[in-house]
Amino acid sequence: MKQLLKNARILSMGQDNQILDDAYLLIDGSMIAQIGSGQPPEGIDEVVDMKDRLLLPGLINTHSHAAMTLLRGFADDLPLQTWLEEKMWPIEGRFGPEQVKWGTALAVVEMIRSGVTCYADMYDHMDEVAQVTVEAGLRARLCRGVIGLGSSEEQENKRREAVQFARNWNGAGEGRITTMLAPHAPYTCPPDYIERIVSDAEDLNLPIHIHMSETRAEVETNVKEYGVRPVEHLERLGVFNRPTLVAHAVHVTEEEIQMLAEYGVKISHNPGSNLKLGSGIAPIPAMLKAGIRPSLGTDGAASNNNLDMLEEIRLAALIHKGVQEDPEAVPAETALRMGTSFGAEALFLDHAIGTLEPGKQADLISVDLTGAHMQPPHDLLSHIVYSAGRDDVRDVYVDGIPLMQNGELCTLDEEKIRYEALQAFEEVKS
Amino acid sequence: MKQLLKNARILSMGQDNQILDDAYLLIDGSMIAQIGSGQPPEGIDEVVDMKDRLLLPGLINTHSHAAMTLLRGFADDLPLQTWLEEKMWPIEGRFGPEQVKWGTALAVVEMIRSGVTCYADMYDHMDEVAQVTVEAGLRARLCRGVIGLGSSEEQENKRREAVQFARNWNGAGEGRITTMLAPHAPYTCPPDYIERIVSDAEDLNLPIHIHMSETRAEVETNVKEYGVRPVEHLERLGVFNRPTLVAHAVHVTEEEIQMLAEYGVKISHNPGSNLKLGSGIAPIPAMLKAGIRPSLGTDGAASNNNLDMLEEIRLAALIHKGVQEDPEAVPAETALRMGTSFGAEALFLDHAIGTLEPGKQADLISVDLTGAHMQPPHDLLSHIVYSAGRDDVRDVYVDGIPLMQNGELCTLDEEKIRYEALQAFEEVKS
Ligand SMILES: [Zn+2]
Ligand SMILES: [Zn+2]
Repeated sequence: MKQLLKNARILSMGQDNQILDDAYLLIDGSMIAQIGSGQPPEGIDEVVDMKDRLLLPGLINTHSHAAMTLLRGFADDLPLQTWLEEKMWPIEGRFGPEQVKWGTALAVVEMIRSGVTCYADMYDHMDEVAQVTVEAGLRARLCRGVIGLGSSEEQENKRREAVQFARNWNGAGEGRITTMLAPHAPYTCPPDYIERIVSDAEDLNLPIHIHMSETRAEVETNVKEYGVRPVEHLERLGVFNRPTLVAHAVHVTEEEIQMLAEYGVKISHNPGSNLKLGSGIAPIPAMLKAGIRPSLGTDGAASNNNLDMLEEIRLAALIHKGVQEDPEAVPAETALRMGTSFGAEALFLDHAIGTLEPGKQADLISVDLTGAHMQPPHDLLSHIVYSAGRDDVRDVYVDGIPLMQNGELCTLDEEKIRYEALQAFEEVKS
Repeated sequence: MKQLLKNARILSMGQDNQILDDAYLLIDGSMIAQIGSGQPPEGIDEVVDMKDRLLLPGLINTHSHAAMTLLRGFADDLPLQTWLEEKMWPIEGRFGPEQVKWGTALAVVEMIRSGVTCYADMYDHMDEVAQVTVEAGLRARLCRGVIGLGSSEEQENKRREAVQFARNWNGAGEGRITTMLAPHAPYTCPPDYIERIVSDAEDLNLPIHIHMSETRAEVETNVKEYGVRPVEHLERLGVFNRPTLVAHAVHVTEEEIQMLAEYGVKISHNPGSNLKLGSGIAPIPAMLKAGIRPSLGTDGAASNNNLDMLEEIRLAALIHKGVQEDPEAVPAETALRMGTSFGAEALFLDHAIGTLEPGKQADLISVDLTGAHMQPPHDLLSHIVYSAGRDDVRDVYVDGIPLMQNGELCTLDEEKIRYEALQAFEEVKS
């Protein structure tokens, strides 16, 4: 089927990033076939008028624990260990497939509504996550996060489960689902366990996703236990010989940034979560200088407390300027790339998504330009980064399939999901 | 007239800040007459169903230059001096009454839509600002900002203009407009000029509003020129003998914070603008420890780039946690107070607004609770601070008069304002 989005403005986030006015975008099947200005092609099955809307690549959330939406606002403003050990872990321990299913569904509604077309998720009961994602029509890079703190039998069971999930679901949903392997973190997985997972990733030819250097205390513990900081630790374990995406990288030195850059390690910067948990502020300007192209993630809703990627983009654009006292620290365009094209690279999907260009998958969103907060239209890229909100996202397409049109969800029953999510929480609350 | 808002949840931001469920709020004329749970009173002229909405005090923006919405996105991500001297000042120099009128109108639309019921403004052509504000029905504390860099004749003219504006408009709009006197900043006003304005403020019995210690360079210049840092400088000039609201206070020492606390100086923290301009991060946790109750402001849209107070509240809650690596640095409730009750104190209007309590003016907003990003309803105060967006604000009342109902503006013609604002910009763009 051919679909024509016409009367639009288009911000491709490709090399040439000029905004096209009076433009059209032609979708053929699941792919972008043509982008241009002026007279659109004829003989089209479906024509959609995008007047007063800006088309741009769908936003890419490179780190989340979607099901944790059930715990949004459940516990805030606490020291990290109290929050984790007394609040999160006990209730998460009671999560079963139902909680993960409906928590993820709620997250998926929120993500679609805020312009996310692809997300990375690391959690448990991942079959549910994958199933919900396929039904919603979203694209995702999914992994079963494994914590290696239990007996060696438990460790092996979890590892097998992670491998099985990664093998079963890679390429599902007409290719929209891809997978990774995910040792949770250096501080929750013994070294030999990480090595075994690296070897699994080699066997399956899949990337690795891992939390790293989120807090100062974590780095100190790593040095105490293993004699080196986390980057060198993971390097020694061979992690970086695989394509790797690390979440956080808040507490990394110049030397560590160099090593990450040399290995081409991808970064998921999670500004909202890092701020809220008091973890600190990742040295993004130094990473950019070293040639790293960091992406953005929301982390779970329990530590954010939303899944709004426009907010992460804005935080990335703002906080580093303030901390460095440098208004040029992370320019608006860089921040938007972090949420789009750099995100595609971080998930090893940049051959398919991340920019609007013929030959790429039709993963795109429209943003309404008529709001008072979007006037005057001096610089639309600036407005997207510094002023647009979740509410301005009007249309969301993945693989050319509309997931939201004019603010109405096309693939999901939002009311039912809201109801079921609350029920699912009730079942585990005490 | 008596109006009943029923079926609501209510977050009063008073001393007892428990959320009332199944609650009502009775407005009698311009004031809150009664708040309660259960069976509402009868014999009411107008009843509004607030099902699935949370009522809370209107947000208070304590520092802005509303007309600068015309320059939103006009120039971004530049060093401060280049931005000011090469971009802002030349075009602002061409602003006349029309630009201020329509720029302010655009700002007022944006503020109402995002839940602001009261704002402070410092600019030029203030008669236009006051007129637009009265027509919109908003509450405001307004001042003509005077820069004392010209000839002594120019200085005197501006001062007289400021005094005249402050006298003419104080108490206008059934008391919704109040005024202040505003020497722009220590670095733009000679000491004797500031002293004369302090004396005017005494004569008129009005507060003073001034920019202070926004950038590191400004503080250094102050020390070089006057031998002391800005706080001591202003103290010596007698500024703090008047009720005073300072904007920014980014670069202040522990001793300066002590002095500000002792004099009861009010602070307008502008996190969005301070971050975007690379000015730095104000020591809000230290101020809170010293007993200061900082308020929040957006500053002008040219350096923010929006007038979204929910975003400022969220930034206030997030950035200090990150910078201090302390998840308890600015708790959610404190951040919300900064945007409501502390804001009322900062504008010396806390006798009338800032909380929802019988006897106060009916300045309030409703926030829709049904969005996916607001689920589950574990902690509504947390959700307002960490997850709600501009789009969730549905109703806005000032003095009991609806300025927005169900997302529709009641007092302003948004389309006309958008059109006229663009025209007004076109007239000065080169
Ligand atoms: Zn995480
Ligand atoms: Zn200002």
